[in-house]
Amino acid sequence: MEQTTFPSWPAVAPRLIAVAAGREAADTVITGGIWVNVHTRETLPDHSVAIAAGRIAFVGPDASHCTGPDTQIIEANDRYMIPGLCDGHMHIESGMLTPAEFARAVIPHGTTSMFTDPHEIANVLGLDGVRMMHDEALMQPVNIFTQMPSCAPSAPGLETTGYEISPEDVAEAMTWPGIIGLGEMMNFPGVSNADPKMLAEIAATQTAGKTVGGHYASPDLGPAFAAYVAGGPADDHEGTCEADAIARVRQGMRSMMRLGSAWYDVESQITAVTEKGLDPRNFILCTDDCHSGTLVNDGHMNRVVRHAIACGCDPLIALQMATINTATHFGLEREIGSITPGRRADVILTSSLTDLPIETVIARGQIVAENGSITVDCPHFDWPDSARGTVHLGHELGAVDFEIKAPEGANSVRANVIGVVENQAPTKALKADLPVREGLVEGDGETCQIALVERHRATGGVTNAFVSGFGYQGRMAMASTVAHDSHHMIVVGTDRAQMALAANRLAEVGGGITIWRDGEELALVELPIAGLMSDSPATDVAAKAEQMVAAMQSCGCDLNNAYMQHSLLALVVIPELRISDLGLIDVRTFEKIDLLDPLE
Amino acid sequence: MEQTTFPSWPAVAPRLIAVAAGREAADTVITGGIWVNVHTRETLPDHSVAIAAGRIAFVGPDASHCTGPDTQIIEANDRYMIPGLCDGHMHIESGMLTPAEFARAVIPHGTTSMFTDPHEIANVLGLDGVRMMHDEALMQPVNIFTQMPSCAPSAPGLETTGYEISPEDVAEAMTWPGIIGLGEMMNFPGVSNADPKMLAEIAATQTAGKTVGGHYASPDLGPAFAAYVAGGPADDHEGTCEADAIARVRQGMRSMMRLGSAWYDVESQITAVTEKGLDPRNFILCTDDCHSGTLVNDGHMNRVVRHAIACGCDPLIALQMATINTATHFGLEREIGSITPGRRADVILTSSLTDLPIETVIARGQIVAENGSITVDCPHFDWPDSARGTVHLGHELGAVDFEIKAPEGANSVRANVIGVVENQAPTKALKADLPVREGLVEGDGETCQIALVERHRATGGVTNAFVSGFGYQGRMAMASTVAHDSHHMIVVGTDRAQMALAANRLAEVGGGITIWRDGEELALVELPIAGLMSDSPATDVAAKAEQMVAAMQSCGCDLNNAYMQHSLLALVVIPELRISDLGLIDVRTFEKIDLLDPLE
Repeated sequence: MEQTTFPSWPAVAPRLIAVAAGREAADTVITGGIWVNVHTRETLPDHSVAIAAGRIAFVGPDASHCTGPDTQIIEANDRYMIPGLCDGHMHIESGMLTPAEFARAVIPHGTTSMFTDPHEIANVLGLDGVRMMHDEALMQPVNIFTQMPSCAPSAPGLETTGYEISPEDVAEAMTWPGIIGLGEMMNFPGVSNADPKMLAEIAATQTAGKTVGGHYASPDLGPAFAAYVAGGPADDHEGTCEADAIARVRQGMRSMMRLGSAWYDVESQITAVTEKGLDPRNFILCTDDCHSGTLVNDGHMNRVVRHAIACGCDPLIALQMATINTATHFGLEREIGSITPGRRADVILTSSLTDLPIETVIARGQIVAENGSITVDCPHFDWPDSARGTVHLGHELGAVDFEIKAPEGANSVRANVIGVVENQAPTKALKADLPVREGLVEGDGETCQIALVERHRATGGVTNAFVSGFGYQGRMAMASTVAHDSHHMIVVGTDRAQMALAANRLAEVGGGITIWRDGEELALVELPIAGLMSDSPATDVAAKAEQMVAAMQSCGCDLNNAYMQHSLLALVVIPELRISDLGLIDVRTFEKIDLLDPLE
Repeated sequence: MEQTTFPSWPAVAPRLIAVAAGREAADTVITGGIWVNVHTRETLPDHSVAIAAGRIAFVGPDASHCTGPDTQIIEANDRYMIPGLCDGHMHIESGMLTPAEFARAVIPHGTTSMFTDPHEIANVLGLDGVRMMHDEALMQPVNIFTQMPSCAPSAPGLETTGYEISPEDVAEAMTWPGIIGLGEMMNFPGVSNADPKMLAEIAATQTAGKTVGGHYASPDLGPAFAAYVAGGPADDHEGTCEADAIARVRQGMRSMMRLGSAWYDVESQITAVTEKGLDPRNFILCTDDCHSGTLVNDGHMNRVVRHAIACGCDPLIALQMATINTATHFGLEREIGSITPGRRADVILTSSLTDLPIETVIARGQIVAENGSITVDCPHFDWPDSARGTVHLGHELGAVDFEIKAPEGANSVRANVIGVVENQAPTKALKADLPVREGLVEGDGETCQIALVERHRATGGVTNAFVSGFGYQGRMAMASTVAHDSHHMIVVGTDRAQMALAANRLAEVGGGITIWRDGEELALVELPIAGLMSDSPATDVAAKAEQMVAAMQSCGCDLNNAYMQHSLLALVVIPELRISDLGLIDVRTFEKIDLLDPLE
């Protein structure tokens, strides 16, 4: 799996050999460091690393034979030399950043390789969107490998996405230079039931010799799990407890343990290694989803490795879980993941293996960050108009589009209401008796309106329903084009005019998140790329996201992670009630239901 | 890497899923065994394994949900269920057996996967010969993966082989279904010096995503070693001491530790794991070369694993070194090497993890051996005449062809003599004063004649020289078409007429080994395939080889492993003196030298 822009090992082998033999001088030599060897699981003091053509040419106690007058010398000063960190599974879109800006945010944290599934853009722009993400990924100074998304739509028949992914799309993507495998196979009931489309995607990936990502989000470790394993997924990051991790590894999968902005699955699973003493080679660390605020304030894979160590994991084993284990899983153990000859020269200098300060980051032989600041350019793809103008409403919306008509003559109705529960992904299917005014059903107290606004095909479709739990007060509305997984637009509000203002505003700016009150915009996060990502720096996006959270709070919402709740309300694979472009969906039965109960 | 005759995982995934889910009945269920899990490094009592379509469908405490009335039940009776053993690097020709007969010999020992480099036949029949070995390999009931030979000839310019291997040959072979990588890159000086042909072979392999086998047969761990590593070989089996093993693994190669018929390199290297405590994942067990006698009397990979355990290695780690470590190295970890869903159902039942009795062997779901006896057929390839008639002498030889003319008028000459040293591969460059009778130089005392008889192109060429150390007495001769690496014919004898008889006899039978005394044949090992291999059972070949050793002894030779010494006398890469079709070669200087010193 070569990236188009970076020469392969065989392409530069003559130079690496010449440097190792001492016949030519290295481009760069790191001297006097402690070699953290993830193959033997050792630390070896007083070692030097010679680099040529962006790859490691030599590692040994003395690199003077390959040092010339023009060789750049980096003094390690007895610091540890660790391999650049790998994120085994993640979604760049979760940072609301383009690959370039995501890379810019995480490089100072020592992440030099990412395995990223552009599942969100696949729902908006299909294979073309995946290709754009893939192409920008290949432009970066670090290694971003793309996992071809497997499940768009996530819930066939229950929603209409912008595009769908087919087995033919998967087969085509497997020929692209930066594709490393299939993204998480979320349709686990489909695999367990031998759904031909899902199996065709897996087969296309296996036939190409690439890695099939898994996603088995169920505590059931019985025959359904066994059938999923027999279907071919090679890893899983959905485990949440020690038994999950152990079951996966015993069955020949790799356990990916995640610490994302909202995922905390390392501490509960790593005891499989730290307490049960299992061979650690099949355990991998990843983030899955990180918001820009996490990247700006807390870190990325360095945060995950530190956390694993804080959970009692031996630092060298924790580092293996974020380097060579990941590389081996994706068939890249001779390309990345260790500081040994032939590999891409991705090296971090750090003065402590427990605190893991990321002091110098070297990627492909060049210094890319020093003391938390990036020192290289992360080039931007020239995103076409098709990617920048993805909010297609059909017509300017008005308050009338959000009206919910009551049955003739009713003074009050009983409605099905999506009940948001703090810190839980599942919602509750609630009932509420709501008042009728001038023939229209109105929100009341905790219950306000929610709308799913179609934005892919300009159908003008608006699905209206009710939601409770946000605590909004006054005349307000909030809209977002990040609306997993179909990524239409979700508008929540107490006032139909504000809802229209918010929706129209997102159409105007090409997508993002906006909050309105009394006719004024309180906060705006522009996400012009597919309505999902910004090509501004992470610090800017994080600052605007903070303003957005503050604006939600000023409207009365003090729910933890309230924005995430908002953006997941159309995720029609997680119970109990969700909204889609097709209507209100009861995810317990996978059926569309009526918004209002019949009058008694 | 799929074998043509065995369906891939995706091809049978629907059936595996149906069995795992309990919707269809398994073909076979092994019940009540102790699951040796090489992923977690655990033993798990009371487990069952369900098999369908030759692959593992399910492993768990209870397989009753996938057991039907027609399911074959194998009672494990609390025995261990271990994965079929893998030989990480080997040459089938060393057993003097075809792949089919080699497989028949090793299957009862629990070997179900072999990574084999048909280097010898490549010298005799070139790419066509490799293809025949590859094709017979794919016909077997176990997994024989072929490594494309890299170095034929071994010593360009110092010998003429039957065929040469080119980078184009390597690139072509990489497209064959059974090719797993490049065979041991023996030309280590070539790699360290960036020889374009060697690097082209490595590049063709790496570009195909396959594994480059290494062979660094030098104790020098300085820049020459570093340069070799930088060239790309991914493993090495030539290490002989702990420092060798550690150096290789630290540099990102895998250390293959071998126990062959004449190689004893496990005990001296495994301390890297057992005493130094290195992560064992990058250590692999292999045999490299096993004679038929070893296979018949001592075992194969079971012998190596037992030996590793006897050397103090934890049995589970030793098993990992002969199963999952090997599979991972060759990119086959989801195909072989563990008892987990999707993998080929290669399972051994054994009642002890230390003694490792091989009681039942299951390969691809069928029982292939029970209590040391094979229970399946190992089909023979229809070897063509081109492979069966490879001894081309040009004309019937007579005593005259072995005459060594003395300089005009000399009564005695001083000759360069190849000195055989017991239990050592290198020879000594000796001098001897030899008598002249009727114008011909004669052997004397310990010194007898040796001849390299050209047999590939029928040139009629005979290179005559002298050898000492065998201890032959009387009028005798011994000839062999196993003559590493060019595999012409080596004839050693005390009498020119006997030498001619022996050489002509091998031409008559199509190759092998023969010993003559006083006009009578004392022993014959027919090796009709390429003059290297027999398609008779290993027991027959081993019995004939024993007779051959007895005949050598009856002629006065009591050297240990004398036949190996004989067959290596043309190996013009090991010092000090060797014979080739081009003459007498001083391997200290890589130059041809005169047989006789000038008269003083």
